Amino acid sequence: MTLPAAESELSAVARPDSAADVGALYRRIRGNSHSICAPLQTEDYVIQTMDDVSPPKWHLAHTTWFFETFLLEPHLAGYQRFHARYGFLFNSYYEAAGERHPRPRRGLLSRPTVREVYGYRAHVDRHMERLIEQINKQAGESERERITDLVELGLNHEEQHQELLITDIKHILAENLLSAVYVPERSAAAAAPAGVRWMSHDGGLREIGFEGEGFSYDNEGPRHRVYLEPYQLASRLVTNGEYLEFIEAGGYEQPGHWLSEGWATVQERGWQAPLYWEKADAGWTMMTLSGPRKVRESEPVCHVSYFEADAFARWSGKRLPSEAEWECAASREPIDGNFYEARRFHPAPADGASSQFFGDVWEWTQSPYTPYPGFQPAAGAVGEYNGKFMCNQQVLRGGSCATPRRHIRPTYRNFFPADARWQFSGLRLASG
Amino acid sequence: MTLPAAESELSAVARPDSAADVGALYRRIRGNSHSICAPLQTEDYVIQTMDDVSPPKWHLAHTTWFFETFLLEPHLAGYQRFHARYGFLFNSYYEAAGERHPRPRRGLLSRPTVREVYGYRAHVDRHMERLIEQINKQAGESERERITDLVELGLNHEEQHQELLITDIKHILAENLLSAVYVPERSAAAAAPAGVRWMSHDGGLREIGFEGEGFSYDNEGPRHRVYLEPYQLASRLVTNGEYLEFIEAGGYEQPGHWLSEGWATVQERGWQAPLYWEKADAGWTMMTLSGPRKVRESEPVCHVSYFEADAFARWSGKRLPSEAEWECAASREPIDGNFYEARRFHPAPADGASSQFFGDVWEWTQSPYTPYPGFQPAAGAVGEYNGKFMCNQQVLRGGSCATPRRHIRPTYRNFFPADARWQFSGLRLASG
Amino acid sequence: MTLPAAESELSAVARPDSAADVGALYRRIRGNSHSICAPLQTEDYVIQTMDDVSPPKWHLAHTTWFFETFLLEPHLAGYQRFHARYGFLFNSYYEAAGERHPRPRRGLLSRPTVREVYGYRAHVDRHMERLIEQINKQAGESERERITDLVELGLNHEEQHQELLITDIKHILAENLLSAVYVPERSAAAAAPAGVRWMSHDGGLREIGFEGEGFSYDNEGPRHRVYLEPYQLASRLVTNGEYLEFIEAGGYEQPGHWLSEGWATVQERGWQAPLYWEKADAGWTMMTLSGPRKVRESEPVCHVSYFEADAFARWSGKRLPSEAEWECAASREPIDGNFYEARRFHPAPADGASSQFFGDVWEWTQSPYTPYPGFQPAAGAVGEYNGKFMCNQQVLRGGSCATPRRHIRPTYRNFFPADARWQFSGLRLASG
Amino acid sequence: MTLPAAESELSAVARPDSAADVGALYRRIRGNSHSICAPLQTEDYVIQTMDDVSPPKWHLAHTTWFFETFLLEPHLAGYQRFHARYGFLFNSYYEAAGERHPRPRRGLLSRPTVREVYGYRAHVDRHMERLIEQINKQAGESERERITDLVELGLNHEEQHQELLITDIKHILAENLLSAVYVPERSAAAAAPAGVRWMSHDGGLREIGFEGEGFSYDNEGPRHRVYLEPYQLASRLVTNGEYLEFIEAGGYEQPGHWLSEGWATVQERGWQAPLYWEKADAGWTMMTLSGPRKVRESEPVCHVSYFEADAFARWSGKRLPSEAEWECAASREPIDGNFYEARRFHPAPADGASSQFFGDVWEWTQSPYTPYPGFQPAAGAVGEYNGKFMCNQQVLRGGSCATPRRHIRPTYRNFFPADARWQFSGLRLASG
Repeated sequence: MTLPAAESELSAVARPDSAADVGALYRRIRGNSHSICAPLQTEDYVIQTMDDVSPPKWHLAHTTWFFETFLLEPHLAGYQRFHARYGFLFNSYYEAAGERHPRPRRGLLSRPTVREVYGYRAHVDRHMERLIEQINKQAGESERERITDLVELGLNHEEQHQELLITDIKHILAENLLSAVYVPERSAAAAAPAGVRWMSHDGGLREIGFEGEGFSYDNEGPRHRVYLEPYQLASRLVTNGEYLEFIEAGGYEQPGHWLSEGWATVQERGWQAPLYWEKADAGWTMMTLSGPRKVRESEPVCHVSYFEADAFARWSGKRLPSEAEWECAASREPIDGNFYEARRFHPAPADGASSQFFGDVWEWTQSPYTPYPGFQPAAGAVGEYNGKFMCNQQVLRGGSCATPRRHIRPTYRNFFPADARWQFSGLRLASG
Repeated sequence: MTLPAAESELSAVARPDSAADVGALYRRIRGNSHSICAPLQTEDYVIQTMDDVSPPKWHLAHTTWFFETFLLEPHLAGYQRFHARYGFLFNSYYEAAGERHPRPRRGLLSRPTVREVYGYRAHVDRHMERLIEQINKQAGESERERITDLVELGLNHEEQHQELLITDIKHILAENLLSAVYVPERSAAAAAPAGVRWMSHDGGLREIGFEGEGFSYDNEGPRHRVYLEPYQLASRLVTNGEYLEFIEAGGYEQPGHWLSEGWATVQERGWQAPLYWEKADAGWTMMTLSGPRKVRESEPVCHVSYFEADAFARWSGKRLPSEAEWECAASREPIDGNFYEARRFHPAPADGASSQFFGDVWEWTQSPYTPYPGFQPAAGAVGEYNGKFMCNQQVLRGGSCATPRRHIRPTYRNFFPADARWQFSGLRLASG
Repeated sequence: MTLPAAESELSAVARPDSAADVGALYRRIRGNSHSICAPLQTEDYVIQTMDDVSPPKWHLAHTTWFFETFLLEPHLAGYQRFHARYGFLFNSYYEAAGERHPRPRRGLLSRPTVREVYGYRAHVDRHMERLIEQINKQAGESERERITDLVELGLNHEEQHQELLITDIKHILAENLLSAVYVPERSAAAAAPAGVRWMSHDGGLREIGFEGEGFSYDNEGPRHRVYLEPYQLASRLVTNGEYLEFIEAGGYEQPGHWLSEGWATVQERGWQAPLYWEKADAGWTMMTLSGPRKVRESEPVCHVSYFEADAFARWSGKRLPSEAEWECAASREPIDGNFYEARRFHPAPADGASSQFFGDVWEWTQSPYTPYPGFQPAAGAVGEYNGKFMCNQQVLRGGSCATPRRHIRPTYRNFFPADARWQFSGLRLASG
Repeated sequence: MTLPAAESELSAVARPDSAADVGALYRRIRGNSHSICAPLQTEDYVIQTMDDVSPPKWHLAHTTWFFETFLLEPHLAGYQRFHARYGFLFNSYYEAAGERHPRPRRGLLSRPTVREVYGYRAHVDRHMERLIEQINKQAGESERERITDLVELGLNHEEQHQELLITDIKHILAENLLSAVYVPERSAAAAAPAGVRWMSHDGGLREIGFEGEGFSYDNEGPRHRVYLEPYQLASRLVTNGEYLEFIEAGGYEQPGHWLSEGWATVQERGWQAPLYWEKADAGWTMMTLSGPRKVRESEPVCHVSYFEADAFARWSGKRLPSEAEWECAASREPIDGNFYEARRFHPAPADGASSQFFGDVWEWTQSPYTPYPGFQPAAGAVGEYNGKFMCNQQVLRGGSCATPRRHIRPTYRNFFPADARWQFSGLRLASG
């Protein structure tokens, strides 16, 4: 599903005008988390298949804790915490919000049960409705704005966890050996994608970063000038077919293509292909959220680490784009694509019309995740949201098939360590 | 609940005479596994809180796999495996039965679901009923005996896993921070236990090991002669009160009481008390299967490792008994005590009448687990049951509050590594 | 010791004109490695106190292997390798040069002995003299240039290892508990350093990177334009006294100052002060290459990781400079300072005249180590020198008290992971 | 070299009568440590190639510390410790003697130098001479005996470390890739060993353990009765040729031969042959203290773990002897064999006359290392010598080619964990 660009931009920038709008948005987005979990068995909610993955029930509770901690407790008079221990259990990494349960042990907790977690959500949702109603009636302008902004932050936070829910569910189901199907496959155009065209971009002084109305994360600003040399970007994402050539040319056996740390990682973990790929007698297969099936050459390659994206680019005689190059090019493109709303949960082949800047897969850039000049983290605990992760991470851009459409912007900066593969992450080539 | 010794001995030794008896026994014991899991939430079935613990649904499936693999496949004509991957998933350690899922990853599998595992059990139970019926009707004497013996082995195996189910459930619920209650507490006599009396035993040439009718594990035989020096055994188990004196005397701070490896373990893991104990302002509390509560001095100390049992004994100026000393003494005692059937799932204070040789807690002995002279493992895959673990383990004797009464014998040899604490393990002092 | 800027620039840029000049340079620089090791006992040459450290004899042999592999083997007719296994033992990380001994096991090799390693050096030096002579006599212009450039690379490589020799020797001697003294202390001006002045720099389009004659590493180019906002830099390095305020204000106890990964590192390794600091009853002491002594407040703080430098800056309400900001400012400064040639091997207090851009300590910048636009690694195995490390490292600038004066340039980019502390690494504050 | 049994027994049991005798013995045994190290380069003294190995200079210093701590400090008036930190550095595991340097970091210390360690030895030896002189002149009978006993303990301790020196030197030289030779090879009779004869032993009540005059360790007593079934022992050790059959029959690939923990160890460490064996194109080679050479089938197999010895025995349809079986048989044999004094440092083929109970290789027994009935550790810090290791170790008997002849007795109990391979350890088969 693709939204017209105009409409989407509207929904991205507008701050809801009234409590009714806020309430409707709140209900819709919170409801999406439930839709995402609807296909799960109770058992699927509990498992943590690696340190990076959180049990789905944890995501459901943690996003709820966010509203409870940053909205209800400080702003709804007389609010009582749902459970005394939940603050400890469902804080993720907010040092300012107190001690917390260690992340790698999230999968060791059978309680609270899934039913209890849904009870927690209902409780917080009921009180959030009340808070949202009150804002309009009682609060002054600035207080109203402050709370509305926090709700918006909480909803963006929930959307991020919706994407994580989907990628974590994929990892959990893939760990099972029983080929579970999360969503039936949507038939996709089988045609081979068009050849790559190289789109030239002028260099010079440009501006990047967020500015204007509507929500954005603190790490997207301030908007600032950068100097770019002229460059070219590929007209579409790298495909499985192209990546297979790299594999078959011995890409995973030749250290010369790799960053030193990348090569060490390949050796240590025995990587020979993207995550979820398996070599069978009849060729490569992959695990998808619609169950295991053959690798299709026309689809964008996915579940590769930065190390693999970088090695593929070097092998190709190209490079990855910088985040500034990507942003300058993407800003001219309509924000449509294969997002969460398509409920395909898998990248789709380029159809010739789209340049695939948005949706399908997050695109690794060559840019380490650093603060923009003049960056100031938000005040208080929510200031821990982004800034403290600005070390040893790479920026990814453009959203994926698991990202809510509303959530993405040309200035949006996602970030993961160079060895992460369980997100829907792929690449586009650059040169110049 | 205590059974009269005579009756219990009867049930321990008699090989069931008819298919009807076998079937009844099979149904009763298999049903107990379901009773044990009845208080669980679905989520509790899935968790593996440490490498030693298995998810309850794994126990339910693994014991079922045992019957499927060693009974149904070879002996029931036309039997079809319930699921092609279950052999891989639910083999524990039988190398001869093929490749298997790695133990520390048992808690990463959400599928098969609990419902599916119960379906597996029902399927196998149905076919086991059919096999048991057929034996009587068709099989020759020796074949009948061979199959009956295998059923008996499978049921003993199930009983062992029932004990593990209980100790693993305790670990799983204790990992939760929400004070789950598995079973309501049964009030126990609060009276202080009698003082220790020292019971003297003559030395000389004695015999230990199993001999006679009825089921026993291969590791209990052959019966053989041992030479013992005269010795004394305490008339009851060591209590929490006595163990608290050790703690308060700095027992966990002084290396002189400890085996070298024990002291290293204490340092490394920060042990300061038995597992499940916690120091609160108002004194020591402990986690039980009836929820957390105060440590009661009259109860036998429990959840101590061999290292702790040995250190306590050395601090006391005594020692642990050898397994031969224990067996010679215990053979004269009635096999009654606080077993699984009491559904207390916690050791009870000595009542003066009982010497607590059976039930309550497994008693660590000073004997490493080694083969008896002339030991021969059973033929085939079931021969992997015991012999291959005869290294770096200590023998425990007497059963616990989680052991089915039918399962225990004076010759029964349990074994765990010296640092294991999650079983109901305690100690009795010896001297001489 | 400080060299006048003019002279130093000369020595930095001039390519030696004749074989005589090359030979003299070769002898001088190779000889410095021997001077550095002169105070060592044989035992000190053998030890590897952590994975990052190499045994001094390994450095001596590895730099020699570099000349043998990249100069003598390809360019000196009839050259025979000194020892068949040395290629395997003394290759550091050149994948193209074949298999190699694993880095963390370098300290497990007692052979070759120190004497044998010096024999290896003498052998290679003899043949290098011959090669250098031949160039002038026989080779054509382009061949002469190519070989001279490789010799220059080898000498720069040796200079880098001279710095590592000094920092590794410090780590090795500090691991001993016997307060070994490597060099007698040179008395330094004890006066308190001047207060910090803030030097303003205009923003705008600027150029950074190496261009021109003389040696530079591939990672210093190409020279290219960057856009800078106006910024301020402190007039000197941060001192121990200022850093002590951070410690005493609880800097190591408050997560809010730290990057997330930095805070995890602090917790995991129990950091409470820079490396080599120890808290004694009478105040902080530190290990130096002149033995242990009191921490002096006037000296630049040293042996801090990027995490600590960044946390200190955040606590100060400032930030670290970017490498472009640093380079633009430093390019106007004379390249003098407290270098290797001063043989002090310890940072010295600011004397008011110097802005300490060069020497004393490497300055952490906020810039991750990335390729400049248009970067091309050198061809062949020596192309592995820099490019493949461009991930998860931070850039440091300016050289230290262990850097040979000749080796440093304003464009010089050093790089280490964010948790490295055993180099002479400190910081300068920036704002704007 | 073999000593006649009578003479050896004499030297084993006699307590030296006079200070002159004690002094001579002291000088002779201390001197042996120097002879053992004579072939070493300084660099060889410093290395720790795995946690179990200690640098030779550490052994030299630690044995010296033993005399300083347990003899000189308490018994020589006015004695001053040689160096204040040596107590910390050279205590091995005596908790009662204070804090100590962690064992796995022994190889990280370059100081004290080898020369300084020899200086330490000379200092302590000088004072020990004085103490030994004084005993005779001044001390009372009981004091004299007590000190003489402690000297004897210190010398036995030194002898144990002489064996460890030899096995550690072998490991250190083998880690080098340069085929260092410690001692020239002594040609040995090349004849194939005689076939195995099975020597029958009656069962019944027997006595084992040390009793009588002369030195023994506390763990060898008290002498006590054991009951043995009749058994047979092989007339010689298992040879390389026999072990090669096991390898070639797939012994390292079939889990059925192995203890469960043994099989896990084989998998984890990739064992395919004894330590120091390597498969070359022309067949198996092994590292020896005379350099690498072909595996000779006639020699006793050596450098196998308990796991391998046990697996070989099971594959052979036999078993390992118990320590009681071994001792009863060995007590009738002359204590001659291929000991340290032969300076061959490698096991020799059976010559038909000898049953190889003593020397050549330590023989793994099936007996875990446990206290004998009535065992009491010695009082004070020296009581930590043996008792605290009585857990998760297996007993070995008979001494090896690295054991001083004087040091061994039929009652001598050596012990190592089941996975240790760097000692000269082999096996003899038993049955019955």
